[in-house]
Amino acid sequence: MISASKVKFVKSLGIQKFRKHHQQFIVEGPKMVDELLRSDFCPLEIFAVESWHSDQKELLQKHGDAIVAVTDKEINRLSGLKSANKVLATVKIPERKTFQQIFNNPVIILDGISDPGNLGTIIRIADWFGIHNIICSNDSVELYNPKVIQASMGSLFRVKVYYEELNRVFTKYGNNIPVFGTTLDGRNIYGTEIPSPVMIVIGSESHGIRPTVQKFLTHKITIPSFGSATESLNAAVATGIVCSELMRNKIN
Amino acid sequence: MISASKVKFVKSLGIQKFRKHHQQFIVEGPKMVDELLRSDFCPLEIFAVESWHSDQKELLQKHGDAIVAVTDKEINRLSGLKSANKVLATVKIPERKTFQQIFNNPVIILDGISDPGNLGTIIRIADWFGIHNIICSNDSVELYNPKVIQASMGSLFRVKVYYEELNRVFTKYGNNIPVFGTTLDGRNIYGTEIPSPVMIVIGSESHGIRPTVQKFLTHKITIPSFGSATESLNAAVATGIVCSELMRNKIN
Repeated sequence: MISASKVKFVKSLGIQKFRKHHQQFIVEGPKMVDELLRSDFCPLEIFAVESWHSDQKELLQKHGDAIVAVTDKEINRLSGLKSANKVLATVKIPERKTFQQIFNNPVIILDGISDPGNLGTIIRIADWFGIHNIICSNDSVELYNPKVIQASMGSLFRVKVYYEELNRVFTKYGNNIPVFGTTLDGRNIYGTEIPSPVMIVIGSESHGIRPTVQKFLTHKITIPSFGSATESLNAAVATGIVCSELMRNKIN
Repeated sequence: MISASKVKFVKSLGIQKFRKHHQQFIVEGPKMVDELLRSDFCPLEIFAVESWHSDQKELLQKHGDAIVAVTDKEINRLSGLKSANKVLATVKIPERKTFQQIFNNPVIILDGISDPGNLGTIIRIADWFGIHNIICSNDSVELYNPKVIQASMGSLFRVKVYYEELNRVFTKYGNNIPVFGTTLDGRNIYGTEIPSPVMIVIGSESHGIRPTVQKFLTHKITIPSFGSATESLNAAVATGIVCSELMRNKIN
């Protein structure tokens, strides 16, 4: 039997203020928790219905102590989703690290992404294309927002996401690594070879890449439009197309 | 002064049952209403604050009768969004039409898309790449869902979206037009020329392309993964990459 205060605590992690205060976030659903348990992240409590945890004995060896058996009704009370899942975990937010490394792989840089679905989808794209690092400007949407977690479909347990002052990143690495960014007035992406390593900058949903960041771009690229009137592509879709172009260059 | 029953009516259009009953849907925000007024869709009432409609005299010539002046407070009461906009319109749902035409342009076919954000984003992608028609299976998410409208960013006023029994579509057109679909076991998309006209089939978020639809595919294609473990790309991102490949073939 799960206490009312425990329910209140778990629900509070749906709100950024409380995630920050407790340094915990929530992961929901069998697929996501499965990915969580295979990762380096640290689950604190795993609330699970019987049918789930009796199936996961092997995966749970390391985390058996964290299991809290709950009923279907109880998991419904804990869940932030419309249709609750069989399992939900609270997870420790890892210590914030500064991006510091030798580039041997493309890095995606997000300038002010504000939609959590877009950030989650971009993490999933990075994972698909084997890109290990994403750097967000400090004013981008928070990584542990439940909508980011869900949209990432578990990829957030594999791709490293940093929050940085972008100026610092470009000043430190921009002289050695080409910086590609999608703008409306760039070179046609279909005729442009994207090298690797590379920094790929994607602008925010509403303002694109800000002038303070544009000045660091060494190459502006554009996905040409064949339509009449639409002004832009969704930021995650644009990221997907740029990553696809990067990878097709690599294997062709 | 706007009546309580009017507020109730407008709010009710946030729910599918009432949209169906009244055959009306909602369009919110200056950008979206601007696109609406330039389209063939029929706005019934346009609730607008003074600062908006005094700026739009030219655009409103045809629809002046539809304007209902409201205060900031009133538009907040009408809005379904967290931060209300300056203008909101109720729009007549156009009569449902059957897809019937000679193909001279690619057509996107969606097999059971259920996420409204994905459908809206796919409409925006179609618009960007100059694709005029999308056919959804009858069980796909409803076009006039407010989240579809918002995610389409106005592209839904330019791209035609049909709902059909997909069997009928493939039986009628599948003998003459190649049917490409994204699957996990298809040919590498980067080495495959996608012709035009073509039907491009995208599967649902959870089940991909169903077997009943797979049997109509003439070409299976796959976006290769370079990552370790992620199982799939978001449906809208996959659509974006396939459309980008289609268009790069066209211009190269």
